Amino acid sequence: MKSIRYTCDQLERFCRDAFAGFGFTEKEATQITDVLLLADLYGIESHGTQRLVRYHKSIEKGAVKVDAKPEIVFETPVSAVIDGHAGMGQLISVFAAELAIRKAKNVGMAFVTVRNSNHFGIAGYYTKMICDQGLIGISTTNSESILVHTHAREAILGSNPISFAMPAEPYPFWFDAATTVVPKGRLEVYNKKNQPLANDWAVDETGKPCTDAERVLECIDGKVGAGGILPVGGSSERMGSHKGYGFSMISELLCAITSGGATSNHHQRVKGQGAGTCHAFIAIDPAIFGDPAQMKAHLSVFLQELRDAKRADEEVPIYTHGEKELRSAEKRRREGIEVDISTVAEMINICRYLGMDSTAYFGEVDLSGAKIGTYDKVYK
Amino acid sequence: MKSIRYTCDQLERFCRDAFAGFGFTEKEATQITDVLLLADLYGIESHGTQRLVRYHKSIEKGAVKVDAKPEIVFETPVSAVIDGHAGMGQLISVFAAELAIRKAKNVGMAFVTVRNSNHFGIAGYYTKMICDQGLIGISTTNSESILVHTHAREAILGSNPISFAMPAEPYPFWFDAATTVVPKGRLEVYNKKNQPLANDWAVDETGKPCTDAERVLECIDGKVGAGGILPVGGSSERMGSHKGYGFSMISELLCAITSGGATSNHHQRVKGQGAGTCHAFIAIDPAIFGDPAQMKAHLSVFLQELRDAKRADEEVPIYTHGEKELRSAEKRRREGIEVDISTVAEMINICRYLGMDSTAYFGEVDLSGAKIGTYDKVYK
Repeated sequence: MKSIRYTCDQLERFCRDAFAGFGFTEKEATQITDVLLLADLYGIESHGTQRLVRYHKSIEKGAVKVDAKPEIVFETPVSAVIDGHAGMGQLISVFAAELAIRKAKNVGMAFVTVRNSNHFGIAGYYTKMICDQGLIGISTTNSESILVHTHAREAILGSNPISFAMPAEPYPFWFDAATTVVPKGRLEVYNKKNQPLANDWAVDETGKPCTDAERVLECIDGKVGAGGILPVGGSSERMGSHKGYGFSMISELLCAITSGGATSNHHQRVKGQGAGTCHAFIAIDPAIFGDPAQMKAHLSVFLQELRDAKRADEEVPIYTHGEKELRSAEKRRREGIEVDISTVAEMINICRYLGMDSTAYFGEVDLSGAKIGTYDKVYK
Repeated sequence: MKSIRYTCDQLERFCRDAFAGFGFTEKEATQITDVLLLADLYGIESHGTQRLVRYHKSIEKGAVKVDAKPEIVFETPVSAVIDGHAGMGQLISVFAAELAIRKAKNVGMAFVTVRNSNHFGIAGYYTKMICDQGLIGISTTNSESILVHTHAREAILGSNPISFAMPAEPYPFWFDAATTVVPKGRLEVYNKKNQPLANDWAVDETGKPCTDAERVLECIDGKVGAGGILPVGGSSERMGSHKGYGFSMISELLCAITSGGATSNHHQRVKGQGAGTCHAFIAIDPAIFGDPAQMKAHLSVFLQELRDAKRADEEVPIYTHGEKELRSAEKRRREGIEVDISTVAEMINICRYLGMDSTAYFGEVDLSGAKIGTYDKVYK
């Protein structure tokens, strides 16, 4: 598929100006852009700038309220419950993660839970924030229903990613993964590229395996009434499907049940209503267990032992979590970020909508090859 | 395979008397027995009474110190680090979980981490303890190295189960699962039954798939130098192996890194040394988020929605986690517990060793069919 390479600066400038154009303050637009750009840098393209058009749609239909401010509705020294009032997920989540950090620094550990928010980008942005402060970070979110749990043929749970980060040298342990076998964004990428899905990734409305990305996306978008993506572990308990289902449950319980918010199956799809997304942020100060420097050294040794383990294939290196993402970020900062032509078309479309000069960000672009309909579907 | 059915009372009485015979106090023996018996009742036979002979071996070779008492070596209002001094894992863990409960009731949430312990039974025993007090419970442990991480052919990580429990009606959410695709105990059961393993459960020392339970157990026992069990998600990133690997890492970090204890690959196999096992126990009071009764009601509704979801097969019911185990417990309390003949032989062997009259517990037993060697291997 055709793609164009842009520098980080180009994408950052466009994103910031676009979100400012949507009505966010300069500071807010910068904050949202930072979350999206980290995803692009880390190679999680499904959660990067290609998602901008979806955020815009959410703003347009009133699901994301540009002026909403997060509100602390319940609080103890170790906890807080935040009502996001249907604001932009990234802004609510930065607020919540900062609160968790502050509380953890005061009392040792803290758990901040959020209801009535929207899509917050990558869960790992917030654990990175927490980890950058020298703390252990955990974050999770629910989402629209997309996960078909063991023995069901209907999605109740969300993709429910869990992220965990802990300081180490030369780089932290940084884990961020959907509890589905793959995230919905992966299906969108496969759909854009017209590639078939792997077996045991998804089922259709009858509960049978389905490798057609478009069909599964229709299932998820509620046009079919059943079907969706399987949990990690696939469809059978023999291979651990109940474990992926369980980890997805843990996510849902940590964010939606603790916050009194909407579980994934109750996320609203009504015009003018927020999605109802819930998040959780946990920060733990390693000092509550002794000397943080000693703990960091201990973890650093262990991570190196894992990377140094005997390889299944001498040519294939062993990674610890977060390492690939840092390499990707280094490379992309240096060489730029490939954006597929359909996404470029969408971004130019947003420029047109906002009255921004697209050539100032993207130059003159030949949009031939952009997926039919993508360009015209959103704005005439 | 031949098996004999015993009542819970019979097994409980035998276990209690055996542990008392090993030198534990009445109270301690009762406590250990309670952990093992819950596993049997819940249908997790690999962690029940069949494990008694392994605990005995550990005591005999000095890995488990009967007289050791857990010591709090570092403490804050929200946390504690416990040195188990190579005592019996169950006793250390009950002490640690009780401490976590006490602290959480005082300050809202608490994280107690343990180093230098031994095998603690099922992780879910301790989350059940916490949940029975109306709190959210999380527990995890590392173990000997058995998990071969993505792109490796050598086990560094342990089975590293994670358990999570949260109060609900008519029964709590109770999740307890190894982060390997199957626990080692499952391989032992397959080995006893001479059944082949599923593909993508385990690899041999070359990193290739292996369905021979005995061979994989040899790999794990360090006789081969590589090979072991795969994480949930199997061997390829395409199916999410890095996710299972990541969840296993989270376990290891929560228990071994926070406690300054031995990571799974440094568990000692030296005569007279404790295993070095680490555990973590987290208790969270739902009252830090508002009204616990409201939260419980919210979760109860959600669990019912999951059970009521459209089924893939009308004949196969959908479970929420912990439901099957409660049904199993009810059935086994009523009908008794099947014990395979090789395990019975081992238990009778322990009676002989301790000078206990085995017929008082098990009656007259025909041991023909007990796996060759099992009976004689341990004690002459």
